[in-house]
Amino acid sequence: MNLSEVRRAVRSGEWTRPTAGLAPGYLQANLVILPKRMAYDFLLFCVRNPKPCPLLEVTDPGCPVPKKTAPGADLRLDLPRYRVYRNGEWVEEVTDIEAYWREDAVSFLLGCSFTFESLLIEGGIPVRHIEENKNVPMYRTHLPCKPAGMFAGPLVVSMRPLKSKDLIRAVEITSRHPRVHGAPVQVGDPEAIGITDLDRPDYGDAVTVHPGEIPAFWACGVTPQAVAVASRPEWMITHSPGHMFITERRR
Amino acid sequence: MNLSEVRRAVRSGEWTRPTAGLAPGYLQANLVILPKRMAYDFLLFCVRNPKPCPLLEVTDPGCPVPKKTAPGADLRLDLPRYRVYRNGEWVEEVTDIEAYWREDAVSFLLGCSFTFESLLIEGGIPVRHIEENKNVPMYRTHLPCKPAGMFAGPLVVSMRPLKSKDLIRAVEITSRHPRVHGAPVQVGDPEAIGITDLDRPDYGDAVTVHPGEIPAFWACGVTPQAVAVASRPEWMITHSPGHMFITERRR
Repeated sequence: MNLSEVRRAVRSGEWTRPTAGLAPGYLQANLVILPKRMAYDFLLFCVRNPKPCPLLEVTDPGCPVPKKTAPGADLRLDLPRYRVYRNGEWVEEVTDIEAYWREDAVSFLLGCSFTFESLLIEGGIPVRHIEENKNVPMYRTHLPCKPAGMFAGPLVVSMRPLKSKDLIRAVEITSRHPRVHGAPVQVGDPEAIGITDLDRPDYGDAVTVHPGEIPAFWACGVTPQAVAVASRPEWMITHSPGHMFITERRR
Repeated sequence: MNLSEVRRAVRSGEWTRPTAGLAPGYLQANLVILPKRMAYDFLLFCVRNPKPCPLLEVTDPGCPVPKKTAPGADLRLDLPRYRVYRNGEWVEEVTDIEAYWREDAVSFLLGCSFTFESLLIEGGIPVRHIEENKNVPMYRTHLPCKPAGMFAGPLVVSMRPLKSKDLIRAVEITSRHPRVHGAPVQVGDPEAIGITDLDRPDYGDAVTVHPGEIPAFWACGVTPQAVAVASRPEWMITHSPGHMFITERRR
């Protein structure tokens, strides 16, 4: 489906599944919606932690239109699934959020690893969890994010095992794209960042690591959501994992 | 002078002059201090306008130490001169701001063109206003910045006339350094951005443009200060022009 077909299918409620592979070439984004009262601390957290939290856009309070990255879209309608949180607890999953919208809602759009993985594949580097038809394995590290006001927590990373020959190329490719997490934060030594068992990820699925492969760890877009939930905001809405917002921007 | 000599000389009040050329190799920064109440809008303005407002650091409210870029420094003492504003009017110039400090003071450090000009000179590109021992010419354009809350206004640019052969190289060099304004925003057509007379800059001094030279315009760090003043904050402190904060970061 191209972008306008995706918009129509999502907005009509016809498409409620993940967005991987939809509207090829367009940047996809993580969504975090918070009350204005918490927006300064969250914005500063993103500015201080650009690798896990690459800011694509921040909307004006109450405005559901992402004027910079998708002026024709409505963030209340144009994601296939949303999660609604109360006091840090996930209470509902819905396909539109018109009924939940507030005048003090500030929406944060953050870069997403779907873009990043398509760059690797186009660069000739196979991505294991896609080969194995699984979710990417993600781990809480013991690397602290830079705190900002009410927001603090550890960096979450995603892992992709790579052949030695692909590793340098993967660093080259991803380092050119800081809006989608940039270069890896660590390679080859999971224990150095507090990961003791690659087979037991904190989020997502374990994947096969073949002998001689080097695990490479990238800052992960789960970080800001995990940090936001941990601060128990009275009200928060996010996309459902994998059900991203598709911008009108080419990657 | 090296960095620790500069710190000592500035803190003791011995050095109250501009910082150009001091502590070579260290990033220098613009300083804007605002009350916490206005910090969200200003932070968002910077995020939305990264070319004129490259954020190096934002301090916690009331904390005078820039923990990220200069953990050994104190922003109340370590700039040679400050300007104090009340309701958007410049009321005083002082050499330290201990007596003016507030518990809700949030300090913004923004990239500065001193760094940028030394990169051009090291790249073999002469910088006219330095050759002529003048201040750089700066112009208000008719390009609007992206507004954020209470902050809105036009982009201010600085101009450096370049020989055609130096122009491509200057774009190459500066585009690698987004933290100090990055690539030019326009070259060769001042009227296209609302500048009608190069000999009458809005800030700084006019410089000679030789026949055949191309004027190149870069986003300028005066933009955020001009925008902040225009919003008439009840209280604001900035560095005095040219009297920058020197970080502990290498460029």
